[in-house]
Amino acid sequence: MEIVKLNLKRRTYNIIIGSNILGRLGKEICKLKLGDTAYIITNALIKNKYAGKLTKALKRSGIDVIYKTVPDSEQSKSIKISTQVIIDIARYDKKRRIFIIAFGGGVIGDLSGFIASIYKRGIPYIQIPTTLLAQVDSSIGGKTAVDLIEGKNLVGAFYQPRLVLSDVRLLNTLSKRQVLSGLAEVIKYGIIKDRQLFTYLERNYQDILDLEPGALEHIVARCSLIKANIVEQDEKEEKEIRTILNFGHTIGHAIEAASSYKKHTHGEGIALGMLAAVDISRRLNLINQSISQRIEKLIKLVGLPIRIRKLPLKGIINAHYHDKKFIGKKNRFVLLEDIGKTKIVVNIPSKIIREAILRIGE
Amino acid sequence: MEIVKLNLKRRTYNIIIGSNILGRLGKEICKLKLGDTAYIITNALIKNKYAGKLTKALKRSGIDVIYKTVPDSEQSKSIKISTQVIIDIARYDKKRRIFIIAFGGGVIGDLSGFIASIYKRGIPYIQIPTTLLAQVDSSIGGKTAVDLIEGKNLVGAFYQPRLVLSDVRLLNTLSKRQVLSGLAEVIKYGIIKDRQLFTYLERNYQDILDLEPGALEHIVARCSLIKANIVEQDEKEEKEIRTILNFGHTIGHAIEAASSYKKHTHGEGIALGMLAAVDISRRLNLINQSISQRIEKLIKLVGLPIRIRKLPLKGIINAHYHDKKFIGKKNRFVLLEDIGKTKIVVNIPSKIIREAILRIGE
Repeated sequence: MEIVKLNLKRRTYNIIIGSNILGRLGKEICKLKLGDTAYIITNALIKNKYAGKLTKALKRSGIDVIYKTVPDSEQSKSIKISTQVIIDIARYDKKRRIFIIAFGGGVIGDLSGFIASIYKRGIPYIQIPTTLLAQVDSSIGGKTAVDLIEGKNLVGAFYQPRLVLSDVRLLNTLSKRQVLSGLAEVIKYGIIKDRQLFTYLERNYQDILDLEPGALEHIVARCSLIKANIVEQDEKEEKEIRTILNFGHTIGHAIEAASSYKKHTHGEGIALGMLAAVDISRRLNLINQSISQRIEKLIKLVGLPIRIRKLPLKGIINAHYHDKKFIGKKNRFVLLEDIGKTKIVVNIPSKIIREAILRIGE
Repeated sequence: MEIVKLNLKRRTYNIIIGSNILGRLGKEICKLKLGDTAYIITNALIKNKYAGKLTKALKRSGIDVIYKTVPDSEQSKSIKISTQVIIDIARYDKKRRIFIIAFGGGVIGDLSGFIASIYKRGIPYIQIPTTLLAQVDSSIGGKTAVDLIEGKNLVGAFYQPRLVLSDVRLLNTLSKRQVLSGLAEVIKYGIIKDRQLFTYLERNYQDILDLEPGALEHIVARCSLIKANIVEQDEKEEKEIRTILNFGHTIGHAIEAASSYKKHTHGEGIALGMLAAVDISRRLNLINQSISQRIEKLIKLVGLPIRIRKLPLKGIINAHYHDKKFIGKKNRFVLLEDIGKTKIVVNIPSKIIREAILRIGE
């Protein structure tokens, strides 16, 4: 078991990573004095699989539990569902001290964190992420949000959890595609910040795909530490520090958006987006071909896509230019100078961006 | 003109108080680099009266304006209206850098601040309060919220504005009842923190009722300073410092709630609530009768109620025990030791509370 501390003065919290550690939860919550009743936001699938264990872990410490299931899809990240859940919480909250547990993947985490941030101007919440993607990324750092038809994550808050508990045993029932979706972000951490992690992945990717607990614990802890360090320095993405987490996401998001988030998982979009960013870095002579080949090789080895069939070039370019981060500004990319070393570059000629996108077409 | 600075490190902002100072606005906004387009949330009444002046002040500095009117009632403090406004903002926000101006009283301020806090995880907003109550209280300190049927202000955030501009000239068109509603809070500041202000009110209340700009500027500046000092020390009401602002509000809110917020203005409820708190203080021998008489005299002199006809005793006591601040806890009152000096007391015998409420009945 490993503990990563995310230091934010009065809002400091621990990220606990281990295998089969759900049993610790009650004790941790009591230490933090979060309340007497856990309002657990989850979906039916996760509830069926793990509610027994979770309830037991909480009841043993005298904590009451209330489960609230929401649909298992991005549709749950809406103001409508947030409102329904908040009204439900208000009803229970008459004679209890309620705190929220986000028990699920990124959708559950984003929704629950947002609800916790606005109910009574903020009540405590903890994250128990159940996907690799959520364990290495979305559960850490306090970015919460729901979607509008006008755009994803347009409504939200920066609101830190009081605890993140990443039990890699919960990843056992993930599909291969879900594991790969998280693994793309793990590769990203290696590329932007951690050469050693990158090498570890080259050597041990098969253990991760086999869901070997030791390997999972190692990468989740490593990624948690990197993300915690970045969030500590730039909690609200006001400096250019948190920006580097967007490596591969500029074109990655555009790829996801061009297919209305239906064809590619987040990880697949990011894998392709990273390859485009790597290609731009090479075209600008920031890196040489051996580095770009090494990255492409790892992405391919683990089983993530390196090419898109029937590339929707126009759609991707359009989505890219409508990205909310670039409106009215120069384009801005996180690029590479080496594995483990990034550089932010603005105003890249659109010809180069176009060529890099074309290259990930078949 | 006076400027009060509210120090909160990176979130420090100015409260500018003066008469006929709307013209300064454009320059102040440019200094703060808030954006190129002001999205002004207001109601039809205020828009009709003052939009011309405001638009001119902004256009002169090259700032575009968009007006959004919401109904002039507490009904506007809802998730539904928030969502409608946010979707509207998202539509305009494609090629602009939008910031929000809350142009109205407490309802507009609370709603606008909440919207600003959650749109894109927070965009800048400024407060231009148009009632005395909003100028001395709600526009300062970053408490934003909307209501649920289950309770007022149940959904919200702590989110500071970037500027508060209190132009006392905007108070010219207030009804006497609206002025009195704000004046109750002004009296509260005197009672809890500022003996000099209390004496000033005893001597000059008529100037205030006559809306004499010098007198208004004096009290708004004084109250702004007191509130700023308190918020600086306890932004999120986590210590017992910000609590003292609730003097008179415990029973005051219960009085408002008992009549479903229809019979009494906020100020009338607070005036009566303060008298009840003063009475409890006297019964506990924290103050002598000369102090309680002096306070009652001022409240009566300005024209605020000191008694309720047909006291809904049961309703008030019920509402008091369902106050969200007391659920599952001991009762807790801000009481007085002197004019300008408070003391927080817990666990007051319900008999004493009951007698104090009975006393404000006729």
